Amino acid sequence: MPSSVKKITLLALGLISGSLAKSLKSQSFNGEIVAWGRRSASLELGLSLGIIDRYSLDLAEAVKGADVVVIATPTLIAADMIRQLAVLSKQGLLDPKTVITDVASVKGNLLEAAKDAFGQVPRNLVLGHPIAGSEKSGVEAAKADLFVNHRVILTPTAETDADALLTVKHLWESTGAEVVEMPVDEHDEVLAATSHLPHILAYSLVDALAGSPGQQNIFRFAAGGFRDFTRIASSDPTMWRDIALANSDALLTTIDQFSENLSCLRDAIACGDGDALMASFGRAKAARDQFADMLASQNQSTTTDE
Amino acid sequence: MPSSVKKITLLALGLISGSLAKSLKSQSFNGEIVAWGRRSASLELGLSLGIIDRYSLDLAEAVKGADVVVIATPTLIAADMIRQLAVLSKQGLLDPKTVITDVASVKGNLLEAAKDAFGQVPRNLVLGHPIAGSEKSGVEAAKADLFVNHRVILTPTAETDADALLTVKHLWESTGAEVVEMPVDEHDEVLAATSHLPHILAYSLVDALAGSPGQQNIFRFAAGGFRDFTRIASSDPTMWRDIALANSDALLTTIDQFSENLSCLRDAIACGDGDALMASFGRAKAARDQFADMLASQNQSTTTDE
Repeated sequence: MPSSVKKITLLALGLISGSLAKSLKSQSFNGEIVAWGRRSASLELGLSLGIIDRYSLDLAEAVKGADVVVIATPTLIAADMIRQLAVLSKQGLLDPKTVITDVASVKGNLLEAAKDAFGQVPRNLVLGHPIAGSEKSGVEAAKADLFVNHRVILTPTAETDADALLTVKHLWESTGAEVVEMPVDEHDEVLAATSHLPHILAYSLVDALAGSPGQQNIFRFAAGGFRDFTRIASSDPTMWRDIALANSDALLTTIDQFSENLSCLRDAIACGDGDALMASFGRAKAARDQFADMLASQNQSTTTDE
Repeated sequence: MPSSVKKITLLALGLISGSLAKSLKSQSFNGEIVAWGRRSASLELGLSLGIIDRYSLDLAEAVKGADVVVIATPTLIAADMIRQLAVLSKQGLLDPKTVITDVASVKGNLLEAAKDAFGQVPRNLVLGHPIAGSEKSGVEAAKADLFVNHRVILTPTAETDADALLTVKHLWESTGAEVVEMPVDEHDEVLAATSHLPHILAYSLVDALAGSPGQQNIFRFAAGGFRDFTRIASSDPTMWRDIALANSDALLTTIDQFSENLSCLRDAIACGDGDALMASFGRAKAARDQFADMLASQNQSTTTDE
């Protein structure tokens, strides 16, 4: 971390923000790590684990004098945090130089919230998304190496301050992550296709089968392919409801794109058109094999999701 | 194996039939294992590996005097094998006592083929489906323990001879598999839902994304959930084209059931109906968690599919 960063404030302490703090501590970061939350339970735990230096239940107190504020709440609450920071800013309780970033899965709704709340997108706002996670959650599951070999997507706009961007970039690079930049829209479209849509499809498949008459037998004879295919249907429903609502535009587009493709396959099956099936399955296999090769060559850890 | 079985003939030698033969050899089966095929390459390989005792390229010669004939060709060719066996039967070249079974993924099309070819379903025909496989294929990938702790579904009809059923049941139980019985229709419906539909969805998703403009970026940022979800899109396109065509009725029904569910989720997202999303995601998570518990309690190997 650049030595100019002396205080980092985490808005909510959980798996992601806790892992960030733990990584910073492991690098001998010599600044202060403060956490804010609505309730003290996870904050007390973070303190006792030595992951944070102190905490506050008062937002103004927590962000006072911070060089970087990291919004690490669930997706929909993150927009509310931006609104609360805008209020503090107007009250002179948030230093205009404080860099604001986040870790939420959707970026467009936060950009809109910032525009609305601040009047324009603040130059020191750098929205970001670490593509890392764990099946476990909470600060107790935090790991210093959670971001090693994982990508962090930053989505600066034309107005973003170059130093603010650099500060957030260095913050993540110091954790071992690879930082890439892309526009907000592109981020939300890419994540809708590769993460949000697969979750919707897995939930939909399992829900459809669970509601069918032969449910007991159906799951009894499910094999390895089904197990892998539906693993993400065990994800937290609240989190994915929020993501689906926050990224609804991009998600609807990709659902429609998928449904159109599925409808073509359905027609091919109904008409006994083996050539059409072969063409589609063959294209899919070629793309999936290429994806597997890419993963292998990157040696990138993708054991966890989101 | 019951000692009354002295000759088993495998129609085509690949992963499944090779593994069955290897398992029998490992149990000191003291009868003869003969394989038939259109070409000699895999048969020669099976012979040199000691998996079979001999082979023939002549179907009549291969099945002559066999106690059990196992059809182990790809799905659509299996129907043709039944027709060929019916011709031999009418020519007096197939012993009416010979038990006929198979290992294909779809059963309804074979039952129809048998009705058509034999005039009625032969009493000694016991259609079956071992729920086991491997990412590798061919007789060289055969493993004696491929079926251990895996299920084999047998689909006898009201006319099936009890002794024929028992022979096939014992054959599979001797490999370490758990044998279950269900009607042909139910088998095809259950497999459509838990295996065939997930494959169609995985192929469709990857094909849809591969055809989208941002394809390079899309796969570049795909994470663990996407990797697991799309693994089965790397399956053999020819095999899955055949399965989709062979089980088209049940598959179309389950595609429509899924599409209806997805359409409801789409509407909920479009309308910002978070309660509807929570209800669906919650039901799916409960069912998926229950499925995971069931797998854990069964200690059933499901590392491979189909």
